[in-house]
Amino acid sequence: MPDRPLILIDPLPRTLDVICEPDVRKRLEALGRLVISEGKPMADAEVDRLLPEAEILIGQTAMPKARLDRAPKLRAIFNVETNFLPNIDYREAQARGIWVLSPTSSFAAAVAESSLAMAIDLARGITAADRAMRSGTELYGLAANEGSFMFAGASVGIVGFGDLGRQLRALLVPFRNPVKVYDPWLPADVIRAADAEPASLDEVLATSRVIFVFASVTTENQGFIGQREFGLMQPGACFLLMSRAAVVDFPAFLDAVRSGRIRAATDVFPIEPVAKDDPVRKVENLLLSAHRTGGMKAALHQIGRMTVADAELILKGLPPVMCRRADPAIAARLRSMPVAST
Amino acid sequence: MPDRPLILIDPLPRTLDVICEPDVRKRLEALGRLVISEGKPMADAEVDRLLPEAEILIGQTAMPKARLDRAPKLRAIFNVETNFLPNIDYREAQARGIWVLSPTSSFAAAVAESSLAMAIDLARGITAADRAMRSGTELYGLAANEGSFMFAGASVGIVGFGDLGRQLRALLVPFRNPVKVYDPWLPADVIRAADAEPASLDEVLATSRVIFVFASVTTENQGFIGQREFGLMQPGACFLLMSRAAVVDFPAFLDAVRSGRIRAATDVFPIEPVAKDDPVRKVENLLLSAHRTGGMKAALHQIGRMTVADAELILKGLPPVMCRRADPAIAARLRSMPVAST
Amino acid sequence: MPDRPLILIDPLPRTLDVICEPDVRKRLEALGRLVISEGKPMADAEVDRLLPEAEILIGQTAMPKARLDRAPKLRAIFNVETNFLPNIDYREAQARGIWVLSPTSSFAAAVAESSLAMAIDLARGITAADRAMRSGTELYGLAANEGSFMFAGASVGIVGFGDLGRQLRALLVPFRNPVKVYDPWLPADVIRAADAEPASLDEVLATSRVIFVFASVTTENQGFIGQREFGLMQPGACFLLMSRAAVVDFPAFLDAVRSGRIRAATDVFPIEPVAKDDPVRKVENLLLSAHRTGGMKAALHQIGRMTVADAELILKGLPPVMCRRADPAIAARLRSMPVAST
Amino acid sequence: MPDRPLILIDPLPRTLDVICEPDVRKRLEALGRLVISEGKPMADAEVDRLLPEAEILIGQTAMPKARLDRAPKLRAIFNVETNFLPNIDYREAQARGIWVLSPTSSFAAAVAESSLAMAIDLARGITAADRAMRSGTELYGLAANEGSFMFAGASVGIVGFGDLGRQLRALLVPFRNPVKVYDPWLPADVIRAADAEPASLDEVLATSRVIFVFASVTTENQGFIGQREFGLMQPGACFLLMSRAAVVDFPAFLDAVRSGRIRAATDVFPIEPVAKDDPVRKVENLLLSAHRTGGMKAALHQIGRMTVADAELILKGLPPVMCRRADPAIAARLRSMPVAST
Repeated sequence: MPDRPLILIDPLPRTLDVICEPDVRKRLEALGRLVISEGKPMADAEVDRLLPEAEILIGQTAMPKARLDRAPKLRAIFNVETNFLPNIDYREAQARGIWVLSPTSSFAAAVAESSLAMAIDLARGITAADRAMRSGTELYGLAANEGSFMFAGASVGIVGFGDLGRQLRALLVPFRNPVKVYDPWLPADVIRAADAEPASLDEVLATSRVIFVFASVTTENQGFIGQREFGLMQPGACFLLMSRAAVVDFPAFLDAVRSGRIRAATDVFPIEPVAKDDPVRKVENLLLSAHRTGGMKAALHQIGRMTVADAELILKGLPPVMCRRADPAIAARLRSMPVAST
Repeated sequence: MPDRPLILIDPLPRTLDVICEPDVRKRLEALGRLVISEGKPMADAEVDRLLPEAEILIGQTAMPKARLDRAPKLRAIFNVETNFLPNIDYREAQARGIWVLSPTSSFAAAVAESSLAMAIDLARGITAADRAMRSGTELYGLAANEGSFMFAGASVGIVGFGDLGRQLRALLVPFRNPVKVYDPWLPADVIRAADAEPASLDEVLATSRVIFVFASVTTENQGFIGQREFGLMQPGACFLLMSRAAVVDFPAFLDAVRSGRIRAATDVFPIEPVAKDDPVRKVENLLLSAHRTGGMKAALHQIGRMTVADAELILKGLPPVMCRRADPAIAARLRSMPVAST
Repeated sequence: MPDRPLILIDPLPRTLDVICEPDVRKRLEALGRLVISEGKPMADAEVDRLLPEAEILIGQTAMPKARLDRAPKLRAIFNVETNFLPNIDYREAQARGIWVLSPTSSFAAAVAESSLAMAIDLARGITAADRAMRSGTELYGLAANEGSFMFAGASVGIVGFGDLGRQLRALLVPFRNPVKVYDPWLPADVIRAADAEPASLDEVLATSRVIFVFASVTTENQGFIGQREFGLMQPGACFLLMSRAAVVDFPAFLDAVRSGRIRAATDVFPIEPVAKDDPVRKVENLLLSAHRTGGMKAALHQIGRMTVADAELILKGLPPVMCRRADPAIAARLRSMPVAST
Repeated sequence: MPDRPLILIDPLPRTLDVICEPDVRKRLEALGRLVISEGKPMADAEVDRLLPEAEILIGQTAMPKARLDRAPKLRAIFNVETNFLPNIDYREAQARGIWVLSPTSSFAAAVAESSLAMAIDLARGITAADRAMRSGTELYGLAANEGSFMFAGASVGIVGFGDLGRQLRALLVPFRNPVKVYDPWLPADVIRAADAEPASLDEVLATSRVIFVFASVTTENQGFIGQREFGLMQPGACFLLMSRAAVVDFPAFLDAVRSGRIRAATDVFPIEPVAKDDPVRKVENLLLSAHRTGGMKAALHQIGRMTVADAELILKGLPPVMCRRADPAIAARLRSMPVAST
């Protein structure tokens, strides 16, 4: 059947097996002829040879204008690493009506539930209490909860209200927290529609008992939470860094935690893996997580589910509905490091 | 104003300050003449002298028939330790139309949020990952989440569906867990009304990925979760013991955890404080909490709020709506140990 | 099996068939020996003869002290008409530890969904627009909605926050209405726990765009919403009378509607059936409902389900959890008319 | 300030006043230099003269390729009639990176609350009971509800799961209806994420007690619910036509209602205004609404709020988040009639 659409699959650093459960893999195979490069990037010669017939490209293959010129049938490019990188000429793709897509919300559910648990952990001292009991220093009665506070009803601030922030906000509903959101990319009405109050960064930091940071790194916001900003936070505030280390001034962050003024959790570090002798490993009042809140098998499978569902729609002539569309202007501003593996 | 109602306050092991925030204390003082014994039980002679005029008794004062006979104006007794104890002749109190009440749900919100955080902690390995990072043994990438599973959507079992169980169930809503409940004291319709499925104990244990135990201890159920029951659980199941140590066979519980078949969290221990050399302190796969999930200041303040609100209603001739009413038959079956302090 | 509990069933104006679906009837039959009087009240002689052995009484049989004295085994009386009437010596029943119960929430779901639909109908002019179209006077475009307002987000007031009010409040959640509640029998914390604001009657009336009245009639509140109160309402307010006609001054109510100041819906009338020539039938801006919002088969079946579930618990020595317990003081104040049939 | 962006406003059949509340109008004026044509379309000559400088176009101005060629600075076109019409060369606009947007969800809240109220009206007979009481034919007791059923818990089917369908689905949450959705443009996962079950059209029609139709008209689906489909519905099913008359075979629809097999509500008619002598005006079991469920002031104001919020983002170089983006392929398929006024 020579007419079946040609689908190039070049998912490094992912593999097809990691992102597709068997039933999703089957749906993908039913869509067309798959040419798959796993474990290594697809060879340039092969890409160039196949592009003239390709209708779908799944992967982070370099797609400068010259290659788009060679791909007259191409209808969609799916980034399955889930951060838009400068590998594509986004404006040219748009001009040709090629969908450039990424299932960016794949990790949201995994990160959100971890973030909530870590926030309650900080408020209630769960990990610290386990450590105390293991070292024989636990207290009982009211003394056991000195410094603890109820997470339910506590004022919450969210910095960055994309997929992660919204998913977290949904989990908060039964806790009835008043929620303020800082997100300079969003209109107030979008934030209010999620039962949250739009606010400036300073207001969020100064008035929230629990602060979640989900902001992406852009060319403009590196280190935007620094010494001044940590100084704005309330004594005893809990600060959860869940997106990228580069959005905070990391030394200022650790100083604020070490001083005892705030408690914190972080899933990200300026250099990963963290050095064996990095003093961050010994900081008190800091819940440590080695960049692991997102990387669940179930989250990776989401990548495949969302990609295949949208590929199905596109091949039927319908618009995609599950993945995020790349905006050329935004893609140019993002500064995430590529994922090293998985 | 000699007609103001006489209110006896004998709250040991609580104190009035611990259970009443200032505004609630003021409301209590506005209700009548308070006679308060703090720090020690009210002297028998004083109790006997005051009972003929007393309209409200707040505390765990012994109230056998002989004393009820001396208290013709008594309208309500509030147990503020929050477990009905055998200190009252419940049948005689009922026969006289005396409300016997306790704000038993005071601790529900505090316990529920801790329970949820601990459950996600077990599912996602949060405390264990912090420990690993402190000891320099953390992994990265997919390996960091070996054995983890998404709490969202995981099958949940709840054993005991009183205030704690229901509060926890409400927190689960955004996670969309299928929930089964075992509670032999409740009709199926009550469980279904909370979007949960009634089930036998064995079914709950055998089919749930995460099991919460909130059951009270009665004369009939001591150690009802033992070796056979732990054997029914799925490999990798998470078991959270949040009510009383006596509902499980504790050695069988620890064996199941040590074997690696299940992960667990416990807030309660057969003997508290736990001995410094108790081997429970070293068990892997066990999240340790030294009977601290309930004892928050905010929870203790709930005791005062609920007690005073119901006292206000009763003195207006209205029925109480916030506290639980003692059922003589049930009160006789409960076997909670009195609280040592606070 | 002579030891099976004796259960007297005397449900007039209900019949057992009307309140029990087949599976519930079977559960009832499994509980004990049933003696049933349907279609007419149980003969006094039979009641007197059976009471010495009776353990459960389902029905509105007269139970003065003399009869309670004859019923040493009686554990529970279920009023299945669902209004506590002065047919029982409530204090004596309480003194004997006899549960006096009624499945008062049986009608709540049926009334609540009708109330919501009627409120949206008034806000959006649904029934009026149907009438206009049937008479050929409908308008199009914006003119079609002159005077309409969005129910979503409109300020709501609830007068009486028992089963009906709470059920209605639950249905409002997705509409995000700010909700104020007036209920002098409830503490502020109970109202706040339902995400509503406690307020005085005047404040509720003066600040709400949509007002629901679910209050019961007592010896004290007859006609408590009268000319002064209708005058407090905002022009264009919608007033829904869903409980008992006697809580409003009915002529003042109709005057307020006729004047065009408010729109209204009523399910109740001072005299029912309403006279054929009663001018109420022609009032504009009034949505008419002939006491039919509660009387659904499904609601009547709830009576049986709740009664049988609690009878099952009581015969196992457990406290009832589904029905409301009669409070002697409250029962003495209620002034509902008995239901004429069904 | 010659650099302020030029914004062309050509909103016929809307006017700026109708779609903008004063605060939104102020925000719009703050964005740039407005050139407004209200009450009549902007003259061709003026459009042609202004396009070379225009950055934003709000309105349904014809924008063929030749005009896009004249508009090198144009960043966005907002359709404020809210249906994508064939007035734009969508492919060329996309190729130039011009956002083509429409606040299509503006009417969703207004339509959804009306739809819910009408569905409960059909289930519970509300409008019919008002009519009966006005004509003196009302019944009382159980007879008053002959043929009624509880909306809560009834099986619901939704045909078309765009903005309207999703908004309606959100309102159903407290009613706990099992919900099936037919929408051939959506992946199953999107439907499941809204707690609904994807199903074929036939399955939705055959298994639902209440069926809501929100489907748009396309070149492919005109009259897709016809005699065969009405025959699939359950006796007593309620059918609500809320989108466009052309999606049903209207005579077959009325036949099904007249036969008494189904009850229905419709907000749309093949020809509007409906002829004075159209027999549809007399059909029993049909709730009539003269295309008025959406046209609320508050909904029209939504158009302005969403448009201005997205224009603000775009002029800051950010992607729009509130309006729907036109997909060239989809825009070509839609067949809505233009709105005549407002």
